[in-house]
Amino acid sequence: MSGTVGQVIKCKAAVAWEAGKPLVIEEVEVAPPQANEVRVKILFTSLCHTDVYFWEAKGQTPLFPRIFGHEAGGIVESVGEGVADLQPGDHVLPIFTGECKECRHCKSEESNMCDLLRINTDRGVMLSDGKTRFSKNGQPIYHFVGTSTFSEYTVIHVGCLAKINPAAPLDKVCVLSCGISTGLGATLNVAKPKKGQSVAVFGMGAVGLAAAEGARIAGASRIIGIDLNSSRFEEAKKFGVTEFVNPKDHDKPVQEVIAEMTDGGVDRAVECTGSIQAMISAFECVHDGWGVAVLVGVPNKDDSFKTHPMNLLNERTLKGTFFGNYKPRTDIPGVVEKYMNKELEVEKFITHSVTFSEINKAFDYMLHGKAIRCIIRMDA
Amino acid sequence: MSGTVGQVIKCKAAVAWEAGKPLVIEEVEVAPPQANEVRVKILFTSLCHTDVYFWEAKGQTPLFPRIFGHEAGGIVESVGEGVADLQPGDHVLPIFTGECKECRHCKSEESNMCDLLRINTDRGVMLSDGKTRFSKNGQPIYHFVGTSTFSEYTVIHVGCLAKINPAAPLDKVCVLSCGISTGLGATLNVAKPKKGQSVAVFGMGAVGLAAAEGARIAGASRIIGIDLNSSRFEEAKKFGVTEFVNPKDHDKPVQEVIAEMTDGGVDRAVECTGSIQAMISAFECVHDGWGVAVLVGVPNKDDSFKTHPMNLLNERTLKGTFFGNYKPRTDIPGVVEKYMNKELEVEKFITHSVTFSEINKAFDYMLHGKAIRCIIRMDA
Repeated sequence: MSGTVGQVIKCKAAVAWEAGKPLVIEEVEVAPPQANEVRVKILFTSLCHTDVYFWEAKGQTPLFPRIFGHEAGGIVESVGEGVADLQPGDHVLPIFTGECKECRHCKSEESNMCDLLRINTDRGVMLSDGKTRFSKNGQPIYHFVGTSTFSEYTVIHVGCLAKINPAAPLDKVCVLSCGISTGLGATLNVAKPKKGQSVAVFGMGAVGLAAAEGARIAGASRIIGIDLNSSRFEEAKKFGVTEFVNPKDHDKPVQEVIAEMTDGGVDRAVECTGSIQAMISAFECVHDGWGVAVLVGVPNKDDSFKTHPMNLLNERTLKGTFFGNYKPRTDIPGVVEKYMNKELEVEKFITHSVTFSEINKAFDYMLHGKAIRCIIRMDA
Repeated sequence: MSGTVGQVIKCKAAVAWEAGKPLVIEEVEVAPPQANEVRVKILFTSLCHTDVYFWEAKGQTPLFPRIFGHEAGGIVESVGEGVADLQPGDHVLPIFTGECKECRHCKSEESNMCDLLRINTDRGVMLSDGKTRFSKNGQPIYHFVGTSTFSEYTVIHVGCLAKINPAAPLDKVCVLSCGISTGLGATLNVAKPKKGQSVAVFGMGAVGLAAAEGARIAGASRIIGIDLNSSRFEEAKKFGVTEFVNPKDHDKPVQEVIAEMTDGGVDRAVECTGSIQAMISAFECVHDGWGVAVLVGVPNKDDSFKTHPMNLLNERTLKGTFFGNYKPRTDIPGVVEKYMNKELEVEKFITHSVTFSEINKAFDYMLHGKAIRCIIRMDA
């Protein structure tokens, strides 16, 4: 790939010209990486709700034209000045949030909320110079969460790239760069169920199923899935879910239903919907004395979490997590290894696959709730 | 003391005949201990807010006549059937909550909220037969939280007695049976600050000062005391408090003041007032990424804890604790040892001392905020 080093690359990208309108495959120009940046050839990408949310642009300031995409796997094409950790040919997963390794958060054992590279959904440019690396006929095209993986080539800050085992199949492990790791880490790193404990998971989408997968890996004895769509139970069984509760089937609050099923409450709960009512239920359904509830789903900006403080004083714990508390560069290579050593099952998350030219189909699958994850093959 | 075994003992007790009226020292009859009960000669007791709260009986169903008192130290006089862990002569601290060692909570490493012996402020009788062991001229006198230590002799369930080092001075370590352990354990067992971290403590009463003492023992670099009464700062310095904030001195919420003082928030916060606003402030003043807030103070029954869920999702942790997460029988002897090996300083909590006949003075000190702890000497 050395022939392209330092050169502008012309390649195909799926450009979102307007909010909610189908993406258009265009030939774009991708500038070379600047200091601390890396240009990556994307081989596989997948679609996550966050892409759809910002593409629809119903709740935030729209920023167009833009190249979306943040779950992906690729190979380093070239590196900018000062990049020591990566070199051309390295296999990488782009991550929508970063790890500078220098700030208080990166130096803390507990946090992954890097001050420099923490997710920023408003910014459409590179940090170093405030400019885009994408353009078409001189018109800048904005980046998305520093990754923009719906392009054959993209430019990413070195702090947002996890260098992974080159033996790992990128068409599988690409899904570990966002949603799956988010749910998995919420359970394994934050809720931390002990072997034999019970775990409730709210929301049976990709993140919730990954949280259930984490509970299965941890050896939970009961994994209770909660979702408003009962048809999801059958699929959820593959992820270790042993029981299913649809709140619509009950006259009482779902936390009471779960408490009755479990002699006072589950040991751990993980909330993966973002619904404020589900957050409250997830907290109130854990057992007093030792129960831990973990919030993953992103709430609306006017939501208020409310509970009686005695629910806390009775020795319950409430925590939130971001990206499953994984540090992108330090920890994600280890998640890939969990797949390589067959501890984590990734294939079952991948329900669909399309070519790059069919990328709008992936949006349809997501919008109609058909796919857990749909892989988009860039070379096809 | 063997001459009294199996006999009714006549002794002095401070009886609360009516809500809010001065206690009256009376000669009462104390029946022998029944199965799993222990009769204890109380040598020293002290006064805690909870005694005053239930004596005032403003917020709950009154139960009188009653013998209050639950912070104390004493010596076993005799034991009932089935009591294997204690024998006459053993030094004990009565605890207002218990540890049966058989229930799910007692078997959990994380909980101290025993199903059988968890604090019950409404019950005025013994568990085994629903009767009182105190009477005067045949009239039953009710117990309080299973301890009723404002009496020269009292009968207590074996699960509510911590057997301690007989070399420990009971006139000092008696204060470890409730408030001091509650605050100390909230910091050491639940907030768990690391050496060099910052800790905010809300409320500079006995429990809050004990939380600060825990932070001092843990090696906190900054201990920020928050109280509406600025005159408490001077005393608080003895407990390791390095900085003081009076919310009344600021136009903005105290959590913002603390965030500014600490570059984004403290590492740990411990709430020891029971004010719902202080609970919310304590949570919102911890740093994102790793901050932990611990609620200790007991709220009003209609309070609602409210916060924006993003405060949680940004990797803050909110926990409540009861009795500092100490298991009464398993852990409290170890707290006494912390005093014996000079790690924990107990003397500074004891600001006053009265004779048993002056017990109403101890109530006055508490009501006027004069005492941290006032020791009541039973034999004087």
